[in-house]
Amino acid sequence: MKMVPQNRDFVETVRQSFLRQPIMNLIGAELGLIGPGAVEIHLPYRSDLTQQDGFLHAGVITTIADSAAGYAALTLMPAGSRVLSVEFKVNLLRPGRGETFLARAEVVKPGRTLTFVRADVYALNAEGEGNLVANMQGTMMCLA
Amino acid sequence: MKMVPQNRDFVETVRQSFLRQPIMNLIGAELGLIGPGAVEIHLPYRSDLTQQDGFLHAGVITTIADSAAGYAALTLMPAGSRVLSVEFKVNLLRPGRGETFLARAEVVKPGRTLTFVRADVYALNAEGEGNLVANMQGTMMCLA
Amino acid sequence: MKMVPQNRDFVETVRQSFLRQPIMNLIGAELGLIGPGAVEIHLPYRSDLTQQDGFLHAGVITTIADSAAGYAALTLMPAGSRVLSVEFKVNLLRPGRGETFLARAEVVKPGRTLTFVRADVYALNAEGEGNLVANMQGTMMCLA
Amino acid sequence: MKMVPQNRDFVETVRQSFLRQPIMNLIGAELGLIGPGAVEIHLPYRSDLTQQDGFLHAGVITTIADSAAGYAALTLMPAGSRVLSVEFKVNLLRPGRGETFLARAEVVKPGRTLTFVRADVYALNAEGEGNLVANMQGTMMCLA
Repeated sequence: MKMVPQNRDFVETVRQSFLRQPIMNLIGAELGLIGPGAVEIHLPYRSDLTQQDGFLHAGVITTIADSAAGYAALTLMPAGSRVLSVEFKVNLLRPGRGETFLARAEVVKPGRTLTFVRADVYALNAEGEGNLVANMQGTMMCLA
Repeated sequence: MKMVPQNRDFVETVRQSFLRQPIMNLIGAELGLIGPGAVEIHLPYRSDLTQQDGFLHAGVITTIADSAAGYAALTLMPAGSRVLSVEFKVNLLRPGRGETFLARAEVVKPGRTLTFVRADVYALNAEGEGNLVANMQGTMMCLA
Repeated sequence: MKMVPQNRDFVETVRQSFLRQPIMNLIGAELGLIGPGAVEIHLPYRSDLTQQDGFLHAGVITTIADSAAGYAALTLMPAGSRVLSVEFKVNLLRPGRGETFLARAEVVKPGRTLTFVRADVYALNAEGEGNLVANMQGTMMCLA
Repeated sequence: MKMVPQNRDFVETVRQSFLRQPIMNLIGAELGLIGPGAVEIHLPYRSDLTQQDGFLHAGVITTIADSAAGYAALTLMPAGSRVLSVEFKVNLLRPGRGETFLARAEVVKPGRTLTFVRADVYALNAEGEGNLVANMQGTMMCLA
């Protein structure tokens, strides 16, 4: 499916919104690539983001997957739109162990009201080699 | 379904594990009630936990729901078990607006390997009146 | 949450729509109780509805849960509305073994566009005693 | 991820099991391609498989997606294994309108006990051109 942005400034729109997500700053997440219907977020491992076994907490994995997914949807919405998560489902495929984490989200089907998304989260080692640790399938909503 | 703990010290087991979840400390979450197959987590609102509209980020809502759900499962596992999230699905019913948030998880069906859970997350105002903001349905795994 | 139907004829609306769902007839499903925000569907076991081990196929369990959930949502929608499933998630808690199956759905939060639902599916023996075999959490959409 | 079958006869294993799924016969579904970690199921449109608007019922879409996903998982399990669905989540992207439907499932991560899967369901017109109508993300379990 061809992804055609209606908002010519979608990259800047995402950048500005990301800066206004305080949780991204708290956990140390950073925006990566931004394309039409696709957004990446990077998160370096930090021990204060973990669960009891030292793995990245599933909620933190979800946090970057959800933001990436919401912004992937936002790239295809009209200028001035707000995006809200309706729901998502996350499978935790492997323990969240790595030097850095990469959430890569893409739109599966855009819509006027609802946009369907998928996201994959990879754990990367120091050499940048990665394993898929989680995948997400969800629904985002456009508020005018 | 009757929930019968095999681990007599399940309350202490959960408390000890919770203290070893650094992410709970980072976001300011606290354990509430702990019963057989049921665990609550409280989270006061903080502006650094929010998304771009000032609402609690869906990933943070998920973080407390997932920990509550994992610990609800852990209360019914044998002593010495570890619990891992296999998957969860979260519906975001209302914006995450409130003074404090309460995640209440319960086991739907325990099992030797897999335990099925549900969790509800409420946003409470200063008077303690609440609205359901999210619900979760998921699967937890017992590692011996 | 109080469930207040806007459509005074919601019971008849559901009955009429159910009769127009050919798949319900094919599998032998029947409507049970219909209340504001809640609908039940019954399905007698039939060997031609099973998977390779003789259990009710998870897709058939989903079929009655989804219809019950959609109709639970429809009871709270304005007269003349159509309902479509946006998404659902199903946990299969036990094998689908029983004399008859009961899907019981209820609205968690109604909305103008999106309605959030949950459904439980029970397997009942000849004495009417039952076990929960599956639960569903989903989202329904109102089309005017 | 490389998908290496442990069961040399995985194709025949899937074929035999499919023949023992009576629900597949009831709805008229047929096996398509079978590869390591990937299985397809075809389903011609029939008016008795529909919901109230004449679209393929979401539960029927789920039925072929779930069987395809279960069999995709089974291709990578040891000979003699049984496969059960633990859970799945389905997003309904478009109405189920078409001449025939194709469910294409693949393993995302195999495991000794749990195997993670994804499936896409396409609606095809008489020329074989298709639209994605649903996607699934789920978990399958191996019973020895």
